[in-house]
Amino acid sequence: MGRLRLFISSIGADAVLVSHLPNIQYLCGFSGSAGMLLVNASTATLFTDGRYTFQTREEVSGARVQICKHGLLRAVSEALRARRGCYKVGYSASHMTVAQKQVLADGAGGRVRWVNDRGAVEKFRAVKDADELSRIREAADIISAVFRRVLKGIKPGVTELALAAEIEHEIKRQGASGPSFETIVASGPRSAWAHAQPTAKPLRKSELVVLDQGAILRGYCSDMTRTIFLGKASRKVRSLYTAVLEAQAAGKRAIRPGATAGDVDRATRNTLKRAKLDRYFTHSTGHGLGLEVHEMPRLGKGEQTILQEGMVLTVEPGVYIEGLGGIRIEDDVVVTASGSVDLTTAPREFLEL
Amino acid sequence: MGRLRLFISSIGADAVLVSHLPNIQYLCGFSGSAGMLLVNASTATLFTDGRYTFQTREEVSGARVQICKHGLLRAVSEALRARRGCYKVGYSASHMTVAQKQVLADGAGGRVRWVNDRGAVEKFRAVKDADELSRIREAADIISAVFRRVLKGIKPGVTELALAAEIEHEIKRQGASGPSFETIVASGPRSAWAHAQPTAKPLRKSELVVLDQGAILRGYCSDMTRTIFLGKASRKVRSLYTAVLEAQAAGKRAIRPGATAGDVDRATRNTLKRAKLDRYFTHSTGHGLGLEVHEMPRLGKGEQTILQEGMVLTVEPGVYIEGLGGIRIEDDVVVTASGSVDLTTAPREFLEL
Repeated sequence: MGRLRLFISSIGADAVLVSHLPNIQYLCGFSGSAGMLLVNASTATLFTDGRYTFQTREEVSGARVQICKHGLLRAVSEALRARRGCYKVGYSASHMTVAQKQVLADGAGGRVRWVNDRGAVEKFRAVKDADELSRIREAADIISAVFRRVLKGIKPGVTELALAAEIEHEIKRQGASGPSFETIVASGPRSAWAHAQPTAKPLRKSELVVLDQGAILRGYCSDMTRTIFLGKASRKVRSLYTAVLEAQAAGKRAIRPGATAGDVDRATRNTLKRAKLDRYFTHSTGHGLGLEVHEMPRLGKGEQTILQEGMVLTVEPGVYIEGLGGIRIEDDVVVTASGSVDLTTAPREFLEL
Repeated sequence: MGRLRLFISSIGADAVLVSHLPNIQYLCGFSGSAGMLLVNASTATLFTDGRYTFQTREEVSGARVQICKHGLLRAVSEALRARRGCYKVGYSASHMTVAQKQVLADGAGGRVRWVNDRGAVEKFRAVKDADELSRIREAADIISAVFRRVLKGIKPGVTELALAAEIEHEIKRQGASGPSFETIVASGPRSAWAHAQPTAKPLRKSELVVLDQGAILRGYCSDMTRTIFLGKASRKVRSLYTAVLEAQAAGKRAIRPGATAGDVDRATRNTLKRAKLDRYFTHSTGHGLGLEVHEMPRLGKGEQTILQEGMVLTVEPGVYIEGLGGIRIEDDVVVTASGSVDLTTAPREFLEL
């Protein structure tokens, strides 16, 4: 909250209204599904509803709690209207709908001036402290262990859905609170769908299988992809796999404090380009990871964000070829003083099962 | 899409830009996580990114697909800018962020006039067709069966997390694609948290346990809550349970075409009021259910939406008393020509396990 108050004064605002739930959780601990946090120089108020009366007592620190009977937006705008004189309020234009903003602006009245906070809290969140790192590390350990455990169950005849269910059950057996996103198991030609949902399709011999999975542990996420082959792969498939793995290694090598997010993307993309595969790499190289499974920074083309020690990133190049299938290899890494260290540790070599 | 085109002409617009993903899925079948659908009198275009090239070929009908290399918003605004003359575009102010709207408005230029569509697609979605009803019915059957299956595993010593994991695994074993939301298992005093996430706390003798769970089947959701007691309950707890069950029955009786959503809420609330328990009922009575686990209409105080045959609703009154715990009973019902029919069928009587 201290850094947020420095930010408030740095932009000459009187307060910031935080509406994105992970930002609220980060700032005051509240993990409920409805709330807004109004922070000014001296106080912080969490607005939520009657479902969370007891939960807030256990979870919230650093903010007083206001239980709203007639809607959050009404309560927040009444609180803003009650301020004297002009009042400049930062808000997140990326996390507030046009409709919410309208209700707030109408309710708060003309003396309130709204300014986009341009993701201030997300920027703080990108660099993790020791407690956050230990949670993410543990979530990464869990997902690495889950992959090792389910490996022996990956065989022809098992459906994508059954394998995804087994992965998610194992995630919980290992002590995580659950998957950090809907587990992807995509086999054969469907593995070329970068974001396929698992189906009742059974795995078959001589198919690629992409497994993309993550765990949430004490609020923090991991996210890891492995691609395996059922049976003996062709030389072509092996060389594709090697190219993706090399691209991933190049991406990891590009990570260090002071490099830009775009540098990492360029490293993976150029490696695939040398193998004439860059046109099959249809997404960005990775993203930040923490309370959300996708958060700042984005490792995409030309992204200017400067990497800092303590950031946690995914590095996940892939190639997707219609008919043949897809290959993606994804690890979570933490930026260190001199480079990066892998948090996910499941085997990365080409597995023919 | 036909009804949306009638709507477009009814508000004098030239097109509607659909940005809420469940609305896009409803209109053209696309289930990916990034897309915008621009519909005008003669054509519909789905804008998405390279991750979905192959998936759109299998899923999308009634719209042409444009794969965007430089961002959806840029592609959409370029398409709008290319129109001749004034162009009036409906959009959903409740599902577009201030930042997205800004980029679109700037990119599309001054000749485009933006009008709030006030939830037009959500309103169509509230009334289900036969295929949708059969999916929801099946999702409800699954969750009822899951509850019956896990009942025997509910005993002292089992943790909330383990029980939630068992429920979610059973959901998949029964053929659903997954839970429709994070399963709630809340025991003892924590059962008074209406939206508690499961923890490592073990269930203990003489505790209330609230189980709130749902399944997704072929895209459609179910949502059901049951509350059980471990051991022999006090007279007080029994009378609370009876009051909630009576409130739920009163709510169901109030459902019929022509009644308002607020009528249903009033029925449950008044029943609890007669038992002097209304102050412990801290949320609304229910909500619509379909592609999303919360959708139109909301069954809250004073809500004026007229119920129609084919709507699917949850009815879920509850009481939450600090220290003692919470009791909620929730079923999914479909509005029929003469009233309503339960879709979820797990036992509703007070279970002392």
